[in-house]
Amino acid sequence: MTTVRIAVAGASGYTGVELIRLLAQHPHVELTTVTSEKSAGLPVASVFPHLSHAVPLTFEALEPDALAERADVIFLALPHTKSMEPVANCMRSKAKIIDLSADYRLQDAHVYERWYQTVHTHAELLERSVYGLPELHRSGIVKSQLVASPGCYPTAAILQLAPLAAHGLIDPGTIVIDAKSGVSGAGRSPALPYHFPEAHESLEPYKIGRHRHIPEIEQELSLLCARQQGGRNSATSSQVTVAFTPHLVPMNRGILSTAYCRLTNPVLDAAALLSLYKNFYEKERFVRVFEDLVPNPRHVRGTNYCDLALFADTRAGWIITVAALDNLIKGAAGQAIQAMNLMLGFPEETGLTAPAIFP
Amino acid sequence: MTTVRIAVAGASGYTGVELIRLLAQHPHVELTTVTSEKSAGLPVASVFPHLSHAVPLTFEALEPDALAERADVIFLALPHTKSMEPVANCMRSKAKIIDLSADYRLQDAHVYERWYQTVHTHAELLERSVYGLPELHRSGIVKSQLVASPGCYPTAAILQLAPLAAHGLIDPGTIVIDAKSGVSGAGRSPALPYHFPEAHESLEPYKIGRHRHIPEIEQELSLLCARQQGGRNSATSSQVTVAFTPHLVPMNRGILSTAYCRLTNPVLDAAALLSLYKNFYEKERFVRVFEDLVPNPRHVRGTNYCDLALFADTRAGWIITVAALDNLIKGAAGQAIQAMNLMLGFPEETGLTAPAIFP
Amino acid sequence: MTTVRIAVAGASGYTGVELIRLLAQHPHVELTTVTSEKSAGLPVASVFPHLSHAVPLTFEALEPDALAERADVIFLALPHTKSMEPVANCMRSKAKIIDLSADYRLQDAHVYERWYQTVHTHAELLERSVYGLPELHRSGIVKSQLVASPGCYPTAAILQLAPLAAHGLIDPGTIVIDAKSGVSGAGRSPALPYHFPEAHESLEPYKIGRHRHIPEIEQELSLLCARQQGGRNSATSSQVTVAFTPHLVPMNRGILSTAYCRLTNPVLDAAALLSLYKNFYEKERFVRVFEDLVPNPRHVRGTNYCDLALFADTRAGWIITVAALDNLIKGAAGQAIQAMNLMLGFPEETGLTAPAIFP
Amino acid sequence: MTTVRIAVAGASGYTGVELIRLLAQHPHVELTTVTSEKSAGLPVASVFPHLSHAVPLTFEALEPDALAERADVIFLALPHTKSMEPVANCMRSKAKIIDLSADYRLQDAHVYERWYQTVHTHAELLERSVYGLPELHRSGIVKSQLVASPGCYPTAAILQLAPLAAHGLIDPGTIVIDAKSGVSGAGRSPALPYHFPEAHESLEPYKIGRHRHIPEIEQELSLLCARQQGGRNSATSSQVTVAFTPHLVPMNRGILSTAYCRLTNPVLDAAALLSLYKNFYEKERFVRVFEDLVPNPRHVRGTNYCDLALFADTRAGWIITVAALDNLIKGAAGQAIQAMNLMLGFPEETGLTAPAIFP
Repeated sequence: MTTVRIAVAGASGYTGVELIRLLAQHPHVELTTVTSEKSAGLPVASVFPHLSHAVPLTFEALEPDALAERADVIFLALPHTKSMEPVANCMRSKAKIIDLSADYRLQDAHVYERWYQTVHTHAELLERSVYGLPELHRSGIVKSQLVASPGCYPTAAILQLAPLAAHGLIDPGTIVIDAKSGVSGAGRSPALPYHFPEAHESLEPYKIGRHRHIPEIEQELSLLCARQQGGRNSATSSQVTVAFTPHLVPMNRGILSTAYCRLTNPVLDAAALLSLYKNFYEKERFVRVFEDLVPNPRHVRGTNYCDLALFADTRAGWIITVAALDNLIKGAAGQAIQAMNLMLGFPEETGLTAPAIFP
Repeated sequence: MTTVRIAVAGASGYTGVELIRLLAQHPHVELTTVTSEKSAGLPVASVFPHLSHAVPLTFEALEPDALAERADVIFLALPHTKSMEPVANCMRSKAKIIDLSADYRLQDAHVYERWYQTVHTHAELLERSVYGLPELHRSGIVKSQLVASPGCYPTAAILQLAPLAAHGLIDPGTIVIDAKSGVSGAGRSPALPYHFPEAHESLEPYKIGRHRHIPEIEQELSLLCARQQGGRNSATSSQVTVAFTPHLVPMNRGILSTAYCRLTNPVLDAAALLSLYKNFYEKERFVRVFEDLVPNPRHVRGTNYCDLALFADTRAGWIITVAALDNLIKGAAGQAIQAMNLMLGFPEETGLTAPAIFP
Repeated sequence: MTTVRIAVAGASGYTGVELIRLLAQHPHVELTTVTSEKSAGLPVASVFPHLSHAVPLTFEALEPDALAERADVIFLALPHTKSMEPVANCMRSKAKIIDLSADYRLQDAHVYERWYQTVHTHAELLERSVYGLPELHRSGIVKSQLVASPGCYPTAAILQLAPLAAHGLIDPGTIVIDAKSGVSGAGRSPALPYHFPEAHESLEPYKIGRHRHIPEIEQELSLLCARQQGGRNSATSSQVTVAFTPHLVPMNRGILSTAYCRLTNPVLDAAALLSLYKNFYEKERFVRVFEDLVPNPRHVRGTNYCDLALFADTRAGWIITVAALDNLIKGAAGQAIQAMNLMLGFPEETGLTAPAIFP
Repeated sequence: MTTVRIAVAGASGYTGVELIRLLAQHPHVELTTVTSEKSAGLPVASVFPHLSHAVPLTFEALEPDALAERADVIFLALPHTKSMEPVANCMRSKAKIIDLSADYRLQDAHVYERWYQTVHTHAELLERSVYGLPELHRSGIVKSQLVASPGCYPTAAILQLAPLAAHGLIDPGTIVIDAKSGVSGAGRSPALPYHFPEAHESLEPYKIGRHRHIPEIEQELSLLCARQQGGRNSATSSQVTVAFTPHLVPMNRGILSTAYCRLTNPVLDAAALLSLYKNFYEKERFVRVFEDLVPNPRHVRGTNYCDLALFADTRAGWIITVAALDNLIKGAAGQAIQAMNLMLGFPEETGLTAPAIFP
């Protein structure tokens, strides 16, 4: 098998370096280029001593044209709004592109502009982009040149509610998603809220009802609901709106998402719902539906799994679903590599099979 | 002022030792007796080195009769279901009794028996007990011999929703309470879920929909709703049912509770609701309603405060309230002392004025 | 008793805000002025929500002349090298001055200049300054206008070795001090090493053999050794040199210092040494010499204690002493207030009697 | 290549489950049997949800005879003193045995009996056992049926001092080893010191001068010193004695060991010593000698590396070496697998090449 050449732009953040770490172990690819504005010119191993003796590369400055020449697949792990131009640039080459920012995730440029407070300079590319959640868009990913790989909160929220949404079971006005994230989700730039003595022994909601990943969650759940309502491809008639509150939790890695909703069909019991979840994810390599165990970020640390469980509070009339994933893997780098495997025709789990590391 | 003699039963748990610590600084009381089954015979300072040179007492075995002789006020920090008998015993004396277990918190013995899976052996005392949340039951506490002091989750949940409930504003079928607790809330007995390598870098919901503090929350919110509906003293006609999910979070102290509900009157905006909260808690020494700040357990560590904030997600149609408190103080020992101050006619904040310790 | 007016310069760092917190509870003083370059113009409670409803002050810009007018006692919690000028300025007033920087701690300006790589612009004031460790320099502190209050590492290291040094028992070429600090010791300015995901699940030595607090430790231990050798006031003939390695530990507060040395008189056994320590610190309110307990920062959190213990490894021929203190209290703000109490004639423990908060 | 059958006894502790995790990824072996007293009869994935979908085995009770039948290599991860009999039993088979307890690490049964306070019931096997530190005993490991694999503290301490000892450079009366361990080093049995609220925001030395791994450190350093002194195989004439203090640190994984010593030849400068270390470990796959970086457990998490650095404090006359390793890998399971690879003729790094996981 020919080795595929890979470039990672924005490789000195936590997501970027996780891409480096995982790609360095992937049997069929070779990292040729890693870029970083802040660390250009420095060996990866001097910025990240944990990769000493493992990654002999040096960070370079980002030049989109050069990327396309030196790579068959380009990962972009740039900040939101900073990816629009480089992606457009790379799209002119033959390279496959996996963008880990939010810039190409929303189908509707107006929605993007409302939530990101910036004009989308390449709205024409949105229809060529596929939302990179393999469990929902596998066939699209396989065929696309551009994948917009979703982040940690939406991956958890969408996967934990998809089976209900796809079966038209959710009362759409009742969805509450209470999500908790480890601090690595905030990136590697020091700032007061993430200063150790502020974040440790501390727990805080933030951006209540206005986190920019809300529209992705609503887009995907709406699509699922719409599809169920007779295959109409538009979400308009079944727009889902969610209450979403992210929290910063004093741990390094991991997302736990607790979602609440009421059912349109309350006669379904816990056993029936569990079957529904098990069936929905039956063939998925990276979704584990737990029956007697409770999802916890510690069970997925270092893996590409999203663990799910479902509880029926029949007394109070709520369905509670719980999702756990590693925000840097299934919530970022691992999910992107899963998409890459699909785009390149590799087995989907290639390079992503290491079991979780605990404790 | 005569010094009041105090006994604490069950004083070697985290709540018990926090009672010792706070009472040792109280200007008008003297600790005479502290009991512990496990540590009877040992000096407090050998079990709790942090109290070396501060507390010269020795743990004794629990003898309810002796307590009543040697104390004017008796705090019982025993496990749920273990407090029924000692309380009944002490009630025969003239001592004031503050019970920190759940045994006398529920007005309806049947509800108690359903949730605690045990017969209530002294149901006749329930009507003599007052639910010890001073912000809602101050006048009752002042007059009662027996106060059932509420714990951390209900205190947060009730205080964060009380102003809405009291004004009849909550759509009762929409209440979701997602609560997060530090590990000290689980007590001081070692067990696998609280073993450091299991609880650190870990985050887990537990007892979803079946935590035993749910009925207290529902009782108190129902009473508030009922009162609003024309002063009827029964909760029957306005029974509130909540979805409640507690989570174990890797920190020592603190509760953060995030509650979601829809309003019966959706035209109220954030400013109007903020006023409503500010008015409701205007005279409360231990409730801080934040306007521009976000409640976080780190702001209340070591204090008797419950911090509150309110967010109106007008887009999605939800009201989100956030409460933070120190589970061992406003959620346990401090709240009990606040009740004691009321029962004894001391200023309510006596011994509870130390500012928060941060970081 | 007349209330003493207090100013704190540099009050928005962790040490500064701890001064505010402790002084706000002190019965005989009133905070009139708190300064902060970064937060000038902002209410203390908006920068530090934990002080909401407790401290009604607003941060101001630093003007040394104004400080002296509005305060009887001035605390300066400025960075090292930034305190020289303001202190000199304030010295022209009648105010008592407690400087928490290192600028006036070293008697020898040359030593200061070598370790701090800057000229000492007020070397003439050094002989008017007293090293503010009450346990060793109480009488000097009482009489001085200027106290140079020592920080966390030297306080631990000096107190744990002082009894041995004062009795001439240490073989001076054998002292190893391995110290561990919580992250608040690094201050409140965000930087990569203190970014939560970098500092959590992390443990690192730094500035090995070149930490700038080494000369203080050597100065004070040398003085003790010299004094023992016949009252000579110079340290020259008995210069102590130590190996000192600080480590950054993933906790918020606390210092643990483990010191090793060999004795000049190896026949002394553990019991004799324990007596020696107990006698040396017999009258000290803030030093606890443990016999069967092990010092741990968790036992001193929130207090002005330095806990000590001593172990004689007779097999290997080493004496190991362990010290624990709260780096922000006995290692900073509390020690400074202890000195203030001495300077003003208050009982030494005034405002510093709260027991430790655990867990 | 034929697949080698593997058994792990005592597989439900943290070391045992780490053996399972790593062996499950090893390309040339197959786990056939895992035993656990507490969890016999339970699927591995129900006790360790992080291994769900990865390890289909079920824990069994330990029967030494059965092990030898069903495995070509037997790992024993039993508590100290509990391994003597099972090892002796297995030695009668043809299986290779890797014992992770201390029972066969000390050459001298008297030393074992003194430190472990128990009779060694199979002292006759000690001479057939090899101390399983590949960097020092590779050729012995290759040939032996029984390897006594060393634990975390001795591995760090020996590797960080070996180059100096082997060159006769250490002044033997000056060695101080101050070691810090994450809590997983204490095992998976809950107990008060490891209860989250006790161990978090906490830092404590323990077993000062009497930790049972001291004699291993002294045995190996003495052997190195003796070898240097003319190839004599006995350590008697060059007995090394160390001051050793372990500390419990609030993190899950990792050891940091800081060792101090004086040199017999003080003219050696930092550059010369660095060369000496680089040469000594030149061919070692799992030792990284850092020049400009500082060892930190976070750089080795999940790997079999031991990172080393060396600092010459010429002012004070001390050499300070720092070692970091993952206590469950290079300090336990990984080291044992490294030995297995040697015993079976596999490349030494087989199954141990995953880069570190950070943050």
